[in-house]
Parts: sequence; C-alpha cells; structure tokens
Amino acid sequence: MSKAQTSPETPKRRRIEPRTLQGFSDYLPKQMVTRRYVENTLRKVFESFGYGELQTPCLEYQEILTGKYGEDEKLIYKFTDNGDRKVALRYDLTVPLARVIGQHQNEITLPFKRYHIEKVWRADSPRKGRKREFYQCDVDIVGVANIAADAEILLILHTGFAALGLDDHIIMLNNRQITNAFIRTLNIPEDKAIEVFRSIDKYDKVGLEGVEKELKERGIEQKNIPEILEFIDCDGKSNQQILEQAESRVGSDPDGQKGIEQIKSVLEILEHYGVPEKNIRFNLRLARGLDYYTSLVFEVLVPKFGGMSLAGGGRYGELCGLFAGKEITATGVAFGFEPICAALEEFGLGPKLHVADVLVTVFGEAYLRDSLEISQKLRAAGLKVELYPDPTAKLGKQFKYADANNIPYAIVIGEDEKKKKEVMLKNMQSGEQETVNPGELIKRLAK
Amino acid sequence: MSKAQTSPETPKRRRIEPRTLQGFSDYLPKQMVTRRYVENTLRKVFESFGYGELQTPCLEYQEILTGKYGEDEKLIYKFTDNGDRKVALRYDLTVPLARVIGQHQNEITLPFKRYHIEKVWRADSPRKGRKREFYQCDVDIVGVANIAADAEILLILHTGFAALGLDDHIIMLNNRQITNAFIRTLNIPEDKAIEVFRSIDKYDKVGLEGVEKELKERGIEQKNIPEILEFIDCDGKSNQQILEQAESRVGSDPDGQKGIEQIKSVLEILEHYGVPEKNIRFNLRLARGLDYYTSLVFEVLVPKFGGMSLAGGGRYGELCGLFAGKEITATGVAFGFEPICAALEEFGLGPKLHVADVLVTVFGEAYLRDSLEISQKLRAAGLKVELYPDPTAKLGKQFKYADANNIPYAIVIGEDEKKKKEVMLKNMQSGEQETVNPGELIKRLAK
Repeated sequence: MSKAQTSPETPKRRRIEPRTLQGFSDYLPKQMVTRRYVENTLRKVFESFGYGELQTPCLEYQEILTGKYGEDEKLIYKFTDNGDRKVALRYDLTVPLARVIGQHQNEITLPFKRYHIEKVWRADSPRKGRKREFYQCDVDIVGVANIAADAEILLILHTGFAALGLDDHIIMLNNRQITNAFIRTLNIPEDKAIEVFRSIDKYDKVGLEGVEKELKERGIEQKNIPEILEFIDCDGKSNQQILEQAESRVGSDPDGQKGIEQIKSVLEILEHYGVPEKNIRFNLRLARGLDYYTSLVFEVLVPKFGGMSLAGGGRYGELCGLFAGKEITATGVAFGFEPICAALEEFGLGPKLHVADVLVTVFGEAYLRDSLEISQKLRAAGLKVELYPDPTAKLGKQFKYADANNIPYAIVIGEDEKKKKEVMLKNMQSGEQETVNPGELIKRLAK
Repeated sequence: MSKAQTSPETPKRRRIEPRTLQGFSDYLPKQMVTRRYVENTLRKVFESFGYGELQTPCLEYQEILTGKYGEDEKLIYKFTDNGDRKVALRYDLTVPLARVIGQHQNEITLPFKRYHIEKVWRADSPRKGRKREFYQCDVDIVGVANIAADAEILLILHTGFAALGLDDHIIMLNNRQITNAFIRTLNIPEDKAIEVFRSIDKYDKVGLEGVEKELKERGIEQKNIPEILEFIDCDGKSNQQILEQAESRVGSDPDGQKGIEQIKSVLEILEHYGVPEKNIRFNLRLARGLDYYTSLVFEVLVPKFGGMSLAGGGRYGELCGLFAGKEITATGVAFGFEPICAALEEFGLGPKLHVADVLVTVFGEAYLRDSLEISQKLRAAGLKVELYPDPTAKLGKQFKYADANNIPYAIVIGEDEKKKKEVMLKNMQSGEQETVNPGELIKRLAK
C-alpha cells in the first residue's frame, strides 16, 4: 500500500490506546438486543396511546438548562464551543420539551402529547446503574390541567412495565401540595420547604436516620423533626389508610385538601382503567429531587430489583411557562431506560441474541454465486440471512462463526448440492445435517 | 401555588428566550414521521442481511478522533470536561467502530458485521442540508479483505435506496489504488498524492475549472494538470469504456492492475446479484475527502435531487489496525440520513403524518369512564388510540385537535350513546357521522 494513501498525521506503526470515558459505554450487538427490545416495546406502548415522537438537539444553550434541576445542577456537562457560545449537553428530556413548547408555539396545538427517546448526560460519579451517558424514555402531556392527564401518564407507566414483563412493579404516588400543606402546619418558613423535600428525597439512600440528620443539617428546627418523620411513615399501610393519615394532618388547608382530592381522583381513574391496587401506592415519603415538580409526583420500583427507581415523573406547572411567557402546565414521566435494561437482564426477561436466522456459507470462490443467489431468495422470503463475506475462509471457520453469533442454522452449497440444485442445511445446535431443495428450505427456516 | 415549590433560581416572571443553536434542530412529531420511516426502513434492510447493531458514546477522548479526517478535522467539537479530560463529540461512526474493534478484541469474532444509527457532530458552516448535528446510518464489515465484502456493502446500499423508493439512485464507484497508480505514472511525489485526491474531491462543488485551480494551489506541476483532468473525465462513458480508459493509463503498475481487477469483480458480483447497470457507475473522478480510505470508495447520487451525495463509503485498510495494534481491514458505507430525509420529503415519498388511528373524545367529566373503557378496548385490538386528555374541554375544541393532528376518526360517547351502549363515529375528512356498537367499531377502524 503506498504511503500516499495514509494521512501524514498517522504514521503506520503508531498505536492509539483504544479507551472510552468512565461512565460511557459501547454496546456490542449482543448487548443491543435487550436495549432495542426495551426501546421498541415502550415505543409501541406510547404509539398505542397516540403519542407522537419528538427529538431535540443534544447540545443546548447553557441558560436553557441552568436553574431548573436543583442541587444536581453541578452535574451538567458545560463547555464553550468554537463560536464562543456557552453550551451544554442536555441533562434530561423535560427541560428541552419545555423549551420546544415556548419556541414552537405557532406550530404546536395544545394539548401536546409526545414521547422522546434519546440520550442525556450527567457528570455523576459512576456507580452501579449510574452512567454519565444514558438513555431516557419520556412521555408527557402538555397543556392539560385536568387530573385525567396525570392518570393517563400513570396508565402508560403501568402498561409499559407490564409490556416489559415487569408485572410486579409498584408505582409510588404523592402530591407535593399535601407535603407543602403539612409543612405549613408546622410553621416552617416557606423558603425552607424545599429543604424538607430534598431531605425526604434521600430516604431510599440514607434511611430514616439519614433523613433525620439531613433535616438537622438543613436547619429544620429539632421540635419539627419527629413530626416530619411520623408524617412520612407509610410502611405497611393501605392507600385508604394513608389518605386518612394525610387528611388528619393537613386539616383545613385548601391546597392540602385539593392535593388529597387529586390523589383520590387518580386512584379512582386507575381503578377504572383496571390497574390492580398492588401496582399503585400512595406514599407520603416520595419527594423527587428535581425542583420543577409542583403537585403530583411519581416513581416506579420493582421490589425484587431492590430500591432503585425505574421511572420517575410528576406534574410541572411552571416549567413550560418559563419559556412560553404564559402559564402552560404539563405532566409526564421518564422511564429509566438503563435500570430497566439491567432489571430485564437480571431476571432473564426479553429476547435472546439472534441476529440472523441463517448463515449461508461459501464453499469457495467458485461457489460464491450460488451462495449469493440462495441468500437473496431467503431474504426475499423475509428471513434475516447472513452470507459469510469471505469465500476464501475454510468451512470450519464459517461454522465457528455461526456458533459464536448464535445463528441457529447454516447452509452449505458444494459440488454435489450445486449439481442437484439443492442445499445442505445444518442445525447448529444438534449438528444434524440434511439435503433439501430451495422450496423446502424456505418452509423449514420460516418456522 | 406556594413559593416553596419553585426553585429560588427561577423567580416566577422571568422569561427565558427559547432558542436552539444554529445547525441544530428540533424535530416535531410531524417531522419525525419521515425520519422514523427512513430509520426503520434501513434498519430492516441491515437486519435482513444479518447485521447486528452497535452503539457507542457520543463523547470520545480527543486523541481517538484526531488525525483521521484530513482537512475537515478542524470541524470536530472539542472541549475539556469537569475532570480536565480533553474530550470531543464524535465526528462520524467509522472511527468509533475502529476503536471498538481495538478495544473489544476478546469479545468480537471476526468477521464483524454491524450497523450503527446515531448522531454525529461537525462545526460546519450551516447551509442547505449541512447541519451541525445529524444522524448517520453506517453499515460495515470488519476483518474480510475479499472483494465479496465490498460487493455486499454495495448490495446493501442498493437495497436500502430501493427500499426507500429511490430506485433511480446511482452508486458511484472508484478505487484509490487506480488513481494512485496513475499519479505514479506522472512522477508526482508520493506525499503529494493526497493533495491530488483532495483537489479531485472538490469537483462536485467547484467543477473542472475549480479542480484545476485547486491542483495549482496545492503545488501540482502545471504540466501534469491537463493529464489529471483528462483522466478523471468519465462523463457519458459506459463502465466498460472507463475500465479500458483506466487500464490504458495505469499500464503495468501492479497495484493499479489489482485495483482494476477489484472493480471488475465488484461489477460482476453486483450483476449476479441483479443490480441493474444503470444503478452502478465506475467513475475515476470519485475521490472522497476522508483520509482513511485505502482502495475502493463509493458514493450515491440521485440525479433528480441534484449533486448532493446521499451516501458515501469505502474500504479502510488501516484504521482499525491503528487501535488494534495489528492489521485489520474493513469496508463500509454511511447512509446520509439527513439528505435522504430531505429527498423523500421533496419527492413526496414516505408515509403521511398519522400518529393516531382514532381520537376518543370525552363529552364531559361524567363520561370519562366510558371513554376510558372504549379507548382500552380499541388499544387491545391493536389500534393507536388517543383519548382527549381533558374532560372539561368543549367537543368542538376536541374535533379541532383531531383535525390539526390528522387523526382520521373521532368517537363521541354522550348520554344517548351511553344508554344504548353504542358510540358515535365521525369521519373527520368527510364529516359523516354514524352510530355503531363497539364490535362494529373495531371492525370499521381496523380496516
């Protein structure tokens, strides 16, 4: 090969260490199988509810993203681009949706129901299930204040998890208005309420004692702490019992009462939709870390998978208005694509790797045309057909390739088969071989 | 709403100007229809050939990307992350594939056939069809030197364009080894060969005179320029004529002869695959701007769509080896997702917007349950069903929404229908209304 074909910057013998950034992953075909299955399954559910798809840029102006996420805002990937613009990689799909609503007001008819499946980035410390680059699957309704919208989002959540085979999911449900009303009864100053939310939100990570410590550190008076801890204790109680507990605590506070009415309505609608009570739990402990939620919040757990949240969302009454210049409420949820994939793999749910239905081997250069022909015939019959791309490779190597890639059948056309216009079909699992004609072959493989 | 529900950084009345970076786009549901169709169509073609899917991080270490792309390398989005690492947004999907081959040698069985559909970024000057963020659809075979691999890539290219309805595509084909051999006959120094490629590559943008000017500016001797311009003149000639033209010019140069043999073999295999000659053109003018191609190069044009390249690729013999530390050859192509979408839209190919099959309206709060029920029944029958999410909205508004979103049918359940256990079905295009029972309804909509 002549030197002229190589760039002067890449002399031949230099080796570049191949590596990826921490928290960023390659997904090889065998890993993509589950990921593609989860994406396609959720996409189908979203579309069955008539939701359209949205995609937005991965890079946004920094000021679009800042000031929306609370304490974790420091995790936003920020940089200055070649044109000296301050830009950032998107942190979630909700703030971009709110920007879209503001920016395309003339093109969008409200209510706007959309789903969005793309990557987001967070400079988090990488640990189990916490990547720096990961997919989110969001589904939202913009422009409807009625609780029927939240109920539909929760139905989609339930339908999505059921479609993935995670029937034992639990949708946790709360309303920040109830917690706010409760906080008012304690005479905690309004600007401290967010500190209470942030402390409660840590429960799954730090437990009850940890929440107690957080509350102290965040300047909540000692006398209020036992009451807060009692208020959020919902373990082993039915939705009805927790509703009574909440009602007794918020008293006559109108926002608190409204918040409880919303929970009641949602539970009623979901019952009517046929969502089993075991799948939906009112829980006063649920806070959600993000600042932009204003009333209902929800989260999904699958108990046998541990305490990790597999989806989260809520109603955000003000975020769209920040970009639209007028009040537009919205509600929605983000499916946690990465923990869902991890759960399916742990439980052995989802499809097995099966990229091709059959490998058509090539017996030698002289037989390439025959193998080409049968490959095209099988593709025309709707099969996934891999032709071994190197006619000079030995047959044994080609069979090994079929094994390594879990291809269930291999076809060989040698001299005998060519003469008889037949093919040799090998079952890669049993090793069984038989000679069949092309019509027979299609029938056999289409099974 | 209490102040405590709003982050202190986002006081209520501030409005953030919603805007996106130049060269970056939002895709609303109506724009996503074509994009989803193109992606799904190509994905299906790739899978019919038994290719598995690969995904890689959007961010790479800078040194993975630099030194591979030639003059356009300045367009790479580079920055320093929070951990002081020099990182870059990926520029294409080929260099990440080469890195994957080097990094996962123990997990990957060669030959490795994969497809990859994700976004790439280039800080290009935005103009028609040149975005700064765009999708690529790549399909490659790694680890096979035999020309059968290149022929399969070209067959996939042909099959993909045909599946998209672009039957009149032209696959342009050349071999850098032929051009190199020709350059050697002119006694141009080896390190100047790349300058000749880069000049020829500009032909579609600047024409023959422009190429002449480029060659001069890049220091090619005046006496050689007419010969180069004559060599690359392939207009109105058959593949056979161009083969003869090339053969007469490269003479006894062994690499040149080998290059011509490769073109002959590829044309023969494609003929055997049934690819019409009108779809494949040997053209000595084709150079491709990227430095990493080593022999065959290809590009796709659709003449009625103008001179814009709709796909491009070739064989890169050395790129994978740069990361693997040993020689691994590869061949592949990138479908130009964005110009393909633009072409389909210009020619009115692809599906029409049709997010939901039917809108189930809600006559009022008291009728929500009835509308919920019928929605779920229709979804269970496999239909895409949108329930209007606000039971307080007037019916007229709900019909307008169906119109605005091109939903072909609307269903109304009012007092009469509820009593008779029927629904009113409205054809949104004709305005025709009729009362039907639920069984009838499913039959009607499933058509």
